Amino acid sequence: MLPEIAKLGHIALITPDLKKSLWFFTEVLGLEETEDVNGTHYLRAWGDFEHHSLSLTQGKKSKVDHIAWRTKRPEDVGKFAKMLEAAGAKVTWVEKGVEAGQGRAIRFQLPSEHPFEIYYEMEKTKPDQERKSVLKNQVYKSWRKGASPRRFDHVNLATSQDPAAIHKWLIDNLGFKLREYVDLGNGVIQAGWLSVTPLVHDIAVMAEPEAETPNRLHHLAYWFDNAQDILRAADILSEYGIEFVGPGKHGISQAIYLYVKDAGSNHRIELFSGSYLIFEPDWEPVQWTPEDLKVGLTYWGQDAVIGNEESTEA
Amino acid sequence: MLPEIAKLGHIALITPDLKKSLWFFTEVLGLEETEDVNGTHYLRAWGDFEHHSLSLTQGKKSKVDHIAWRTKRPEDVGKFAKMLEAAGAKVTWVEKGVEAGQGRAIRFQLPSEHPFEIYYEMEKTKPDQERKSVLKNQVYKSWRKGASPRRFDHVNLATSQDPAAIHKWLIDNLGFKLREYVDLGNGVIQAGWLSVTPLVHDIAVMAEPEAETPNRLHHLAYWFDNAQDILRAADILSEYGIEFVGPGKHGISQAIYLYVKDAGSNHRIELFSGSYLIFEPDWEPVQWTPEDLKVGLTYWGQDAVIGNEESTEA
Amino acid sequence: MLPEIAKLGHIALITPDLKKSLWFFTEVLGLEETEDVNGTHYLRAWGDFEHHSLSLTQGKKSKVDHIAWRTKRPEDVGKFAKMLEAAGAKVTWVEKGVEAGQGRAIRFQLPSEHPFEIYYEMEKTKPDQERKSVLKNQVYKSWRKGASPRRFDHVNLATSQDPAAIHKWLIDNLGFKLREYVDLGNGVIQAGWLSVTPLVHDIAVMAEPEAETPNRLHHLAYWFDNAQDILRAADILSEYGIEFVGPGKHGISQAIYLYVKDAGSNHRIELFSGSYLIFEPDWEPVQWTPEDLKVGLTYWGQDAVIGNEESTEA
Amino acid sequence: MLPEIAKLGHIALITPDLKKSLWFFTEVLGLEETEDVNGTHYLRAWGDFEHHSLSLTQGKKSKVDHIAWRTKRPEDVGKFAKMLEAAGAKVTWVEKGVEAGQGRAIRFQLPSEHPFEIYYEMEKTKPDQERKSVLKNQVYKSWRKGASPRRFDHVNLATSQDPAAIHKWLIDNLGFKLREYVDLGNGVIQAGWLSVTPLVHDIAVMAEPEAETPNRLHHLAYWFDNAQDILRAADILSEYGIEFVGPGKHGISQAIYLYVKDAGSNHRIELFSGSYLIFEPDWEPVQWTPEDLKVGLTYWGQDAVIGNEESTEA
Repeated sequence: MLPEIAKLGHIALITPDLKKSLWFFTEVLGLEETEDVNGTHYLRAWGDFEHHSLSLTQGKKSKVDHIAWRTKRPEDVGKFAKMLEAAGAKVTWVEKGVEAGQGRAIRFQLPSEHPFEIYYEMEKTKPDQERKSVLKNQVYKSWRKGASPRRFDHVNLATSQDPAAIHKWLIDNLGFKLREYVDLGNGVIQAGWLSVTPLVHDIAVMAEPEAETPNRLHHLAYWFDNAQDILRAADILSEYGIEFVGPGKHGISQAIYLYVKDAGSNHRIELFSGSYLIFEPDWEPVQWTPEDLKVGLTYWGQDAVIGNEESTEA
Repeated sequence: MLPEIAKLGHIALITPDLKKSLWFFTEVLGLEETEDVNGTHYLRAWGDFEHHSLSLTQGKKSKVDHIAWRTKRPEDVGKFAKMLEAAGAKVTWVEKGVEAGQGRAIRFQLPSEHPFEIYYEMEKTKPDQERKSVLKNQVYKSWRKGASPRRFDHVNLATSQDPAAIHKWLIDNLGFKLREYVDLGNGVIQAGWLSVTPLVHDIAVMAEPEAETPNRLHHLAYWFDNAQDILRAADILSEYGIEFVGPGKHGISQAIYLYVKDAGSNHRIELFSGSYLIFEPDWEPVQWTPEDLKVGLTYWGQDAVIGNEESTEA
Repeated sequence: MLPEIAKLGHIALITPDLKKSLWFFTEVLGLEETEDVNGTHYLRAWGDFEHHSLSLTQGKKSKVDHIAWRTKRPEDVGKFAKMLEAAGAKVTWVEKGVEAGQGRAIRFQLPSEHPFEIYYEMEKTKPDQERKSVLKNQVYKSWRKGASPRRFDHVNLATSQDPAAIHKWLIDNLGFKLREYVDLGNGVIQAGWLSVTPLVHDIAVMAEPEAETPNRLHHLAYWFDNAQDILRAADILSEYGIEFVGPGKHGISQAIYLYVKDAGSNHRIELFSGSYLIFEPDWEPVQWTPEDLKVGLTYWGQDAVIGNEESTEA
Repeated sequence: MLPEIAKLGHIALITPDLKKSLWFFTEVLGLEETEDVNGTHYLRAWGDFEHHSLSLTQGKKSKVDHIAWRTKRPEDVGKFAKMLEAAGAKVTWVEKGVEAGQGRAIRFQLPSEHPFEIYYEMEKTKPDQERKSVLKNQVYKSWRKGASPRRFDHVNLATSQDPAAIHKWLIDNLGFKLREYVDLGNGVIQAGWLSVTPLVHDIAVMAEPEAETPNRLHHLAYWFDNAQDILRAADILSEYGIEFVGPGKHGISQAIYLYVKDAGSNHRIELFSGSYLIFEPDWEPVQWTPEDLKVGLTYWGQDAVIGNEESTEA
């Protein structure tokens, strides 16, 4: 049986200003800190079940240390290691506990040099009594601080390489399905949205031709239950004097969005609601062309450029 | 006892394309038609109590026929007539029934030539059984069609004259209070928001120095109970392929806004929620200066220019 | 010129458990504390402009110390004093500063012994830098803590006396207008909603025939901009394990409601959104009868009994 | 490779009053009609991709004709046929086209006699130009009529048999996973929520000990993007004078709910928002016991009884 990815797990961020990033992610965005181990702060949203969905570590410059994916079965990690090595990737093992809460995992890079991790074992840490939800199916109380998203949702990568090649690599090697894509004609694919789950995208990869490095992070996204929660977040950010783009609604993925940057790390975060689920096994990838790209990018609201713009190194 | 304005009553619009305007206001915006008399269509929102809050009449070009204000007492109409004539305005009387549902009224112009009407008597027409709300304090069922605002809210005028002079005229002659204003320094007032009610504005008047005429309509506004209703309206407009500006939130008046034009008449309509109420009798007008105007105009969201832009003739 | 009430100002509550009440009003409801003077804590919502809209003082038992109304003009306080004395009320003066932020005021009782205060002068206290909104027309940042309502809205009184007599007294002596009422037939008026503002009610007075005292507080209400905010408040209360009634929507006043009690004082608080505004000067009070009372009380949602139930002493 | 269920496809309802049911589902709920073939009306929500998610056929009494599940692969239908026969079920084939838009399918009953269908092939019918969304990833324009849910979500069955046995049957034979359940102690399982997708439940099965038949439908559910949409639906239903239960929020599944019955068929429909997604492959079913069942059933809002109550025959 082929190994399978179950879900996006977490993203490990390096920030040159840990204090400011911690403030942004915990006070402004409202993530909860599970624990702080050896200088790495492990955070998650109130509805995230695993030990962490985001980690912050001080570093010389802003970077993505890795983007981690959970497998469906314990043995899938090893199977992926073999398959990826056979496919030419350089795979290294990370021992249990190197990352807090996590079992043995592998690390490797996409052809675009984006750093990925695959793991299965992860602690589903219980919160302390004060922050614990009264609901048995929810980790923390909601609405304790800041914008207060429910859960980690997706990552959006940019690359100076041909994104279509990365889409193919993700499909061939990790089992992703292409859900929507932007086709500029003449074989030029500008962007693609892919998933292993019914979400329209667990990951997107798009072109950023003039990027300094091939491995860029366009943004990571946290999910909110209601569009109104995004408007509330807009109030909160405005009161902090933090600039952002949105709110708006993409035609592509039907996302209600607001894009904001962590001033500590310069990484961009999407506050995300709406969208839709794909349960059809024979989904035909939705093609957006220059003719209909306007509504694809901005169904309504403040435009969010998805092309050549400031990304961070991944 | 001095006469007093109780509220903004309605706006009478001339449209060069009545059919298209009717479609926009009834199908897209979702206003209800009270009746159609001599070619004039009398409309109102589901929560408007009076016979109409907007009327549409075919004409050669787009224009505002009049903006109507209801007085607190029947005798106030005559009192205003005398006071306005004493103040130099040319006042004409409109007989009962000339405007459907309405009693005797006066018409006059602001120094900026904006056409105003003052009336007291107006039929509070009952809707037909099918459209009638089950609530005794609500006129029509809500949510029957289109965006479905609750009620008419305010008008926003533009002028090539000094808006401060018009603000003063409204304060001195009609009893308005200045609630917020934009002061560009050196005595230049760009815009002011005024009301006779606890709403931040029943009317705004702002500078449009290069306008063709002194009497311009920047927009008229209908109120929605929830910010989410504005997002729903954005979906509806987008599905009709109708362009608009917003959603966003002004710092000034704390309005959640979306601006859209009736393609039939080119008149601009604001879909409006949020804002706040002023109950303080000693309200100090809130001054916005170039230093804080950015947050004043756009607390968040897609910018809505309030300066020199396309207005319609009023 | 007759004196006039401009607005409901504040409510002064006595609580037998100040600590618990403070926690409820500041942490759970999310009111801001302006200051603490001689053991009285002065609170307000983020959108309240005056020094306080609610105060909490330790006392032997739960009680309303007074319900305060602001006049339109400074001289109205003295005028009301004379008129009320002429009408048989016993009026006492409260000197400037006895209540923090407030000028000279009068106190008196309704025929139902509900304690009222009338004042004009009140400090519009600026918040400290950290809590201050970036908006010049808003006092505090919104959404800092708890449910986070915008402003104090209304009080709802219960009495063992005939509520219709109290309605009449409020109309005759304080200038209130009756907006809606419940008529059980045979001249029995169960409840009435009255206002001096365009709100449907600044005050309601309803029958509680078997109450221990004639002066009961059914609830006080804080306003939220969006119905969704009430659902968010329901989540927050549920996480604290605090019981409440609602959400629901009254036909009467079209209020979106949630009723919760401060466990420290047992006073009931309504979290309130929706409703409508009355700008018509010739408003006909809306009559609800036993035939249509069901939709009047509960248009939808969890029933909130407005009849004979636990109230607190006022 | 074992056959797999991809998703809940549709529910085929028999109604003794087709006209009234059609009115309810298309005008009040706002479903779109794909087509009407041989007296069966095929409906779907604006975001449903397949030919239909619900069908209505006139019959002598209210009944569920079948509940249909789509497989992941074409060959899975035949594989399921063999496996189910081996497991003792009586399987019958339905030829292509018997049900409009659908390919060859199988029908069988659960041990509780609930009628199931399994199919793979289904037309993804394009809507006519007028109703078509401008979005390439959305079928119909949203918000055209009535409450306007996005998509079909789940079914909730009741049975006089032991629900735990049905849960086990669904797990063993159709690959469902148990997500949450109510354990009354002493081995009595009152209800279970199961899914093949990351939804908390595609199906629930609960005890109704005194039901006339073992095969009952408690409700079917349509999904709305925002909790606010449920409140809007409450307004719409109230204006039609249609009674319902809710809004409220279950702790179990974290569903924002409103339950309403189609007066034509008496089938119950849940208007549903909120909830959460389960991406963890090692999900431990959440156990609710009598001690925490109160918050499990009603986190807040009007109680919705999930026990012994009016269901319809399935």
